[in-house]
Amino acid sequence: MTAPLKFAVLGTANIANDVSNAIRSAGHVVEAVASRDLNRAREWAEKRDINKYYGSYQDALNDPSIDAVYVPLPTTIAEEWALKAAAQKKHVLVDKPFSSSTSVKRIAEACEGHGVVFLDGTHFVHSPRLQEMQRQIKQGTIGKLLKITVACTTFLPSKDDIRYNPSLEPTGCLGDIGWYAVRFALSFIGYETKVSSVYASASKTSTGAIEDCCGIIHFATGQTVHFDCGFTCGFRQWGECVGERGTVTVDDFIVPFSCGGSFFPRNRSKYNPDLKFRINKLAVEKDKKLEMIDPVIQEIEVSGNNKSQSAAMIDTFASLVRNETGTNRSKWTRETIRTQELIDALFKSCEKNNVVYLE
Amino acid sequence: MTAPLKFAVLGTANIANDVSNAIRSAGHVVEAVASRDLNRAREWAEKRDINKYYGSYQDALNDPSIDAVYVPLPTTIAEEWALKAAAQKKHVLVDKPFSSSTSVKRIAEACEGHGVVFLDGTHFVHSPRLQEMQRQIKQGTIGKLLKITVACTTFLPSKDDIRYNPSLEPTGCLGDIGWYAVRFALSFIGYETKVSSVYASASKTSTGAIEDCCGIIHFATGQTVHFDCGFTCGFRQWGECVGERGTVTVDDFIVPFSCGGSFFPRNRSKYNPDLKFRINKLAVEKDKKLEMIDPVIQEIEVSGNNKSQSAAMIDTFASLVRNETGTNRSKWTRETIRTQELIDALFKSCEKNNVVYLE
Repeated sequence: MTAPLKFAVLGTANIANDVSNAIRSAGHVVEAVASRDLNRAREWAEKRDINKYYGSYQDALNDPSIDAVYVPLPTTIAEEWALKAAAQKKHVLVDKPFSSSTSVKRIAEACEGHGVVFLDGTHFVHSPRLQEMQRQIKQGTIGKLLKITVACTTFLPSKDDIRYNPSLEPTGCLGDIGWYAVRFALSFIGYETKVSSVYASASKTSTGAIEDCCGIIHFATGQTVHFDCGFTCGFRQWGECVGERGTVTVDDFIVPFSCGGSFFPRNRSKYNPDLKFRINKLAVEKDKKLEMIDPVIQEIEVSGNNKSQSAAMIDTFASLVRNETGTNRSKWTRETIRTQELIDALFKSCEKNNVVYLE
Repeated sequence: MTAPLKFAVLGTANIANDVSNAIRSAGHVVEAVASRDLNRAREWAEKRDINKYYGSYQDALNDPSIDAVYVPLPTTIAEEWALKAAAQKKHVLVDKPFSSSTSVKRIAEACEGHGVVFLDGTHFVHSPRLQEMQRQIKQGTIGKLLKITVACTTFLPSKDDIRYNPSLEPTGCLGDIGWYAVRFALSFIGYETKVSSVYASASKTSTGAIEDCCGIIHFATGQTVHFDCGFTCGFRQWGECVGERGTVTVDDFIVPFSCGGSFFPRNRSKYNPDLKFRINKLAVEKDKKLEMIDPVIQEIEVSGNNKSQSAAMIDTFASLVRNETGTNRSKWTRETIRTQELIDALFKSCEKNNVVYLE
């Protein structure tokens, strides 16, 4: 048996609660928390039985007992601390989104150079449900995959939230919750599939924050993705993969309903989620031709193995730290870069209010 | 009691079966069928116990016993016969789509000039379900309406279908099944709401037919619609209206599942459909502020009154013939024109492969 990883959490954002719980439920240790405010760090640490607290992020990085850091800082300062952590030979888990794909590449190169792991904090891609959906599509259950439609919205009541501040979170809802839509789509279309063009239509607040957005991604293969994301309505988190013979749909891919349904659900990291999705068969092959049929709906349940999606993400992270070759590490890095490249292109489309054609 | 209307059907397209059944089940008479091929007209008439058959469309229009004609002809020739029918003082029910909104206006003006009714053959807008969904949204059940996402696809296995022939059906799947998506959206956003821009991304066959398409409509109010339509996958016909407090969703708005589910279902006009939709409450108002809640899903069933949506459309048509003022007639005409205007703009966007900004 190997020793558990010791994490430091940089910052006390809401999401840090969830990931701290996930670190513990995956069998690792939250060794320290750091905040720019020492009192806040102490309070946060005491409330959660955390050994150490620091009044600066650098102090946590200087602690030799720390193996890895979790960086839930605002997008515009996350790179700085990810680079400093890598330089101190700490493995880094950085919350999405990033400033740009160039920024992701700088983090990834620094981590590779220092021999540490870099992973972004997208939980659902580590879930056995997503893997089963991918397997079903790959094995041809719905025939050739033609298009994906996906919706990711949540209600952000306070305009004081940093996600409404373009100087801290330039891409607004597109980077924050639109990230899930883009990542969901790429999980099925393939991260290496060439993108021909993107278009996103944004609604902005008076301060210039993107609070609502819908977009279309057109791939060179002819496959399309259309999505919406936003902060102005309730929590929607569904996706539909459409093939020539049927669809694969999921209602709750970001946070499984069985974890409480609301955003974020109580006890999310403790709950053994029921991971459901549906296959809807709409056509069959007959005499080498497709023929439409009355819909046949199959509900599939995938075991969550008593683990939240966030805990599954921590498992992947620990596995990359301990066992994986550079190739397996770079697979995850590549997925992060490709996702951010699409977010960059969609953001550019929002800014110029027009289609962006890609090479 | 008033006498039933006597209809002539111009052409023997598949859709003519459905509408003929609907005419009968709404208590009216299919008096005659016309085809360019007299034998085909005779066979069609005999099989369906129709009194008269004609070897030319004009012969049917010359028949003084005919009150109204149903025109399911290809888009590019439908206007010609609608105008000729109006000139003979026949009321006209014309299947969608049209060549252009200018073409719709010419038909509408001719009908108005000759004192006859003009209605397009979109059935679902005459359904009590749509009206109940509209009522729920209008009364504020889901708060301010923010966006709509809607999917309309069907599988057209034969490339010989006229909808794959751009010279007969220039707008391909966009006009054919995308029409339902656009009409669904306008039913809730409002036909008079100003459109700022549209974008549609199309996939075409080697002969230039649009066989798959997704699009975004941005309204001056900030509301958005995103949709997909196409001929390459199975029958999808769902819509989701998203408000700031929840959603109204429907799985089967074009042809209710209870009518058989497949496209087109058996016995569609005879069946008393179960018309269902869902309200999903995602937020509540508390102290004048919105607050996210765990989703509360309510399934609502609206009585179909023993009538198919097509029969409800024939009821509206008959009512416009008998009882309605010019204002009520022009309401429906206006909805047809607005729908076609959007189809025109989306088609233009497909052709130039770019955003189209509207006045």
